[in-house]
Amino acid sequence: MSDHPEAPVAPVEAFEPPYYVAVFTTVRTDEQSGYRETNARMEDLVKDVPGFLGTDHAQTPGGLGITVGYFRDADALAQWRSDAEHRAAQERGRADWYRSYTLHVAKVERSHGFVRGDTGQSPSAG
Amino acid sequence: MSDHPEAPVAPVEAFEPPYYVAVFTTVRTDEQSGYRETNARMEDLVKDVPGFLGTDHAQTPGGLGITVGYFRDADALAQWRSDAEHRAAQERGRADWYRSYTLHVAKVERSHGFVRGDTGQSPSAG
Repeated sequence: MSDHPEAPVAPVEAFEPPYYVAVFTTVRTDEQSGYRETNARMEDLVKDVPGFLGTDHAQTPGGLGITVGYFRDADALAQWRSDAEHRAAQERGRADWYRSYTLHVAKVERSHGFVRGDTGQSPSAG
Repeated sequence: MSDHPEAPVAPVEAFEPPYYVAVFTTVRTDEQSGYRETNARMEDLVKDVPGFLGTDHAQTPGGLGITVGYFRDADALAQWRSDAEHRAAQERGRADWYRSYTLHVAKVERSHGFVRGDTGQSPSAG
């Protein structure tokens, strides 16, 4: 089980395009019972999707949350999108946890990364 | 001047595809002098770019920051990318403010949004 760390040491790297990002921006309600457990379960479940590359997450206390999922191709995204347990979690999210959210699914055309002290820059192959 | 609010009330809406997202994920250093002022200036400056649609930002305290910029087309992104003041800020960021970052530039193919209490769902035109 993931322990859903709140302070990752580094962002997900730049992969070689093309790949996909799913940008999920949320504002949550005061009703958060079950959210943490379901979120941890989703983080585990998505790792089983072939072509899943990683996620980044940031949460402003009391404000906006942003989760970015990275996927190798449209098939990987489609598989995650159609997962029954994932769909049930989405339904629960609309019923209870989210005041508002937006999802943007996009194909990456260009990427690069920077790591302090590195001699070179990416993009690096995933 | 923007006051760079830390707790926006709602995420940027789902626009009608295609449009572009620039996903910028960062971990910062302990050296943050000038960061806040420069960030506020960039938030103002990008609004002058024709085709700029908005930004979302979330920051986990002591952890990952994610900024997502939304642009109508590749021309808008190119204009922002080549802005001289923006390039100087990027250089300062690599010299001082960022331990690591990744930039993913991607063309949105699909989007939708949810607002609690709304009768319908988006995508909505920008």
